[in-house]
Amino acid sequence: MKQSMMFIPTLREVPSDAEIRSHQFLLRAGFIKQVAAGVYTYLPLAKRVLNNVEGIVREELDAIGGNELLMPALQPKELWDESGRWDVYGSELMRLTDRNNREFALGPTHEEVITHVVRDFLNSYKKLPLTVYQIQTKFRDEARPRFGLMRGREFIMKDAYSFHATQESLDEAYNNFVQAYTNIFTRCGLNFRMVEADSGQIGGSQSAEFMALAEIGEDTIVYSTTGSFAANIEVADLPVGAPSPDGVGVVDHAKGIEVGHVFKLGTKYSEPMNAVFLDENQKKQPIIMGCYGIGVSRVMMAVIEQNNDENGMIWPKSIAPFDVHVVPVDVKKADQLEAAEKIYADLKTAGFDVLLDDRKERAGVKFSDADLIGLPIRVTVGRGIADGLVEVKVRQTGEVAEVAVADLMTFVQEKYETLA
Amino acid sequence: MKQSMMFIPTLREVPSDAEIRSHQFLLRAGFIKQVAAGVYTYLPLAKRVLNNVEGIVREELDAIGGNELLMPALQPKELWDESGRWDVYGSELMRLTDRNNREFALGPTHEEVITHVVRDFLNSYKKLPLTVYQIQTKFRDEARPRFGLMRGREFIMKDAYSFHATQESLDEAYNNFVQAYTNIFTRCGLNFRMVEADSGQIGGSQSAEFMALAEIGEDTIVYSTTGSFAANIEVADLPVGAPSPDGVGVVDHAKGIEVGHVFKLGTKYSEPMNAVFLDENQKKQPIIMGCYGIGVSRVMMAVIEQNNDENGMIWPKSIAPFDVHVVPVDVKKADQLEAAEKIYADLKTAGFDVLLDDRKERAGVKFSDADLIGLPIRVTVGRGIADGLVEVKVRQTGEVAEVAVADLMTFVQEKYETLA
Repeated sequence: MKQSMMFIPTLREVPSDAEIRSHQFLLRAGFIKQVAAGVYTYLPLAKRVLNNVEGIVREELDAIGGNELLMPALQPKELWDESGRWDVYGSELMRLTDRNNREFALGPTHEEVITHVVRDFLNSYKKLPLTVYQIQTKFRDEARPRFGLMRGREFIMKDAYSFHATQESLDEAYNNFVQAYTNIFTRCGLNFRMVEADSGQIGGSQSAEFMALAEIGEDTIVYSTTGSFAANIEVADLPVGAPSPDGVGVVDHAKGIEVGHVFKLGTKYSEPMNAVFLDENQKKQPIIMGCYGIGVSRVMMAVIEQNNDENGMIWPKSIAPFDVHVVPVDVKKADQLEAAEKIYADLKTAGFDVLLDDRKERAGVKFSDADLIGLPIRVTVGRGIADGLVEVKVRQTGEVAEVAVADLMTFVQEKYETLA
Repeated sequence: MKQSMMFIPTLREVPSDAEIRSHQFLLRAGFIKQVAAGVYTYLPLAKRVLNNVEGIVREELDAIGGNELLMPALQPKELWDESGRWDVYGSELMRLTDRNNREFALGPTHEEVITHVVRDFLNSYKKLPLTVYQIQTKFRDEARPRFGLMRGREFIMKDAYSFHATQESLDEAYNNFVQAYTNIFTRCGLNFRMVEADSGQIGGSQSAEFMALAEIGEDTIVYSTTGSFAANIEVADLPVGAPSPDGVGVVDHAKGIEVGHVFKLGTKYSEPMNAVFLDENQKKQPIIMGCYGIGVSRVMMAVIEQNNDENGMIWPKSIAPFDVHVVPVDVKKADQLEAAEKIYADLKTAGFDVLLDDRKERAGVKFSDADLIGLPIRVTVGRGIADGLVEVKVRQTGEVAEVAVADLMTFVQEKYETLA
């Protein structure tokens, strides 16, 4: 795509209300724009990243038998009365009335709706198990929206629900989700840990959080430096240096951002909402449920928090908004612009997503914007083009090479292969 | 995908509150489920169709330089005060207050938000024109939600906005959108007309609607039976048989469902919202705007309304939820199930989206469900498999052929090519 036709409103100044790096860079690089406290527009570069994350989520969840569907944001009070949550949810639940004074919630989560949607159909053990998911907008009226996309009031979530006749079937789905989530976060380029979460409140259920490690995280993780143990400090409040509960090594602490959560719900919603099936003995049983969430917009933020330097973002190639940035230094020089346009076309033919900076801006502005946006590979077309040479810069390593135009496609393809 | 793992809650009975065919079939074939009046869950088959429609929309809008972004549903009252619409919009606008008693609208459209988002950036004629779009959920508190997805309170829309320094630039974008919309609706398999819409109210602006022809349409189209003239009856109230205004033939009437709308907004929002740019003479001018909508969920409904028979839906292949339905008649017969699974795998390898009906249901149930869902091609694996034969049925034509398994891939590929 040509940059002159794209909406990338980069800023020179660090916005004063942005306290953390990822928020600052999202604003400075023209990825998001605030509409109200905790409410954002995702600008074109962010939308491309979100589309990439969503694509990875779909692939991994389809692979474990997930059915994609789409539920509404408007949820009638009646369903929340059935589950008993209308009266207990508190002021995080955004509520409104329609023109006939019927009450609705703006969904912060969809357990009630999905239980309503499936309960007539899942009337026999023969129709179980079933796994569904959606990528959809959620609403939570946070008391203190902050850190940009980290704690917003309107955000994008992938939520999934599974339905089972037996505990073993739930266990299997839960394990499948743990594997799918591990794949998703790995593919998105996150450094994360799966940690035990608070599982005691609802008898017999199990819960784990996926934490992206980051200094700005709001949770503290207790983990074994040499073993596989990891838990939220709310579950295992052990001091640094204590023996690890799994018997391997000692524990250390780290801060984490919750990007995913898997949870064995059991019959918490199916019992009050009368979602029952007939078992093999024709006996009515409440459906056993699991639920599984990923903060899609928060994943984008966590990746930036983990991958940046003083100049801007550094995208892993799996979710980068474009693969390659082609930057003619001076578009008023015909040889530079023509060469850049040819390289742009050739890279697209080779299957890359390419951004061509065809703007009439100074070289300094173009280079600093390019570093800020942080695409994996930059091809700079400057004066060297007179000798058939361009410059290739790798954002992840900072490596810079002068390459003959004749060798460029092979060079970029080989270099791109080696990147994370 | 295996049907036993999919959520397709087909119904035997026609729901009594569904008055029109497309609504009846959407309910009966397990495509949608009502959550509240005018508020629906899109079940997996519908979500697949929506994903296909959205893919076509993205391709055509990217081709005319559109930037995809994503705006929030929550819109602060302040922005609507700026445009003056808060007080005039009426009870269709869903309103709520947050925990701090700040007022918000749930966006029925996004002129205010997009003007807010771009106005700081588009400060010079050098940055114009710009075209952005989103595929997003809209809210309108219809007095009388009805006809399923036709007039809902929460629905999926593609809305686009263009920004210009000159009227000529707006005219060019408008014409590009007319062409893109023509491509989109054609590719979705719709029989439609572009008609002149009410363009008199705002001086100098121009507006056209894209109408899918259908008996249940709420609008009446006046068109020339032999010429190219077509208009909404509100614009050209001519009786049947009158001479056509374009001088070619006489007019007839037809009913239509509005699926798209293109509109030259002019400075209706930029003037009150102070969205100005500096022209070549460094003089401040209000940005000239266009807006362009497509009812994505309504397109799905209009396609069904135009493509069905007494047995169910008949999908054009461009947006069908799957390409091929493989139906083993009796999965308890090992030879049928094994052959069907092999055909399923081979078709997937050949690049088809395939649904395998591996359910332990009676043949009658499976056939009537298959007709109801209406995938382009059905491969039935029955007793003939003992002689290496399967049956291929083409939903659009009703054609049935017995085909040797050895020839099946070639047969399906060639047959699929010929379909709309």
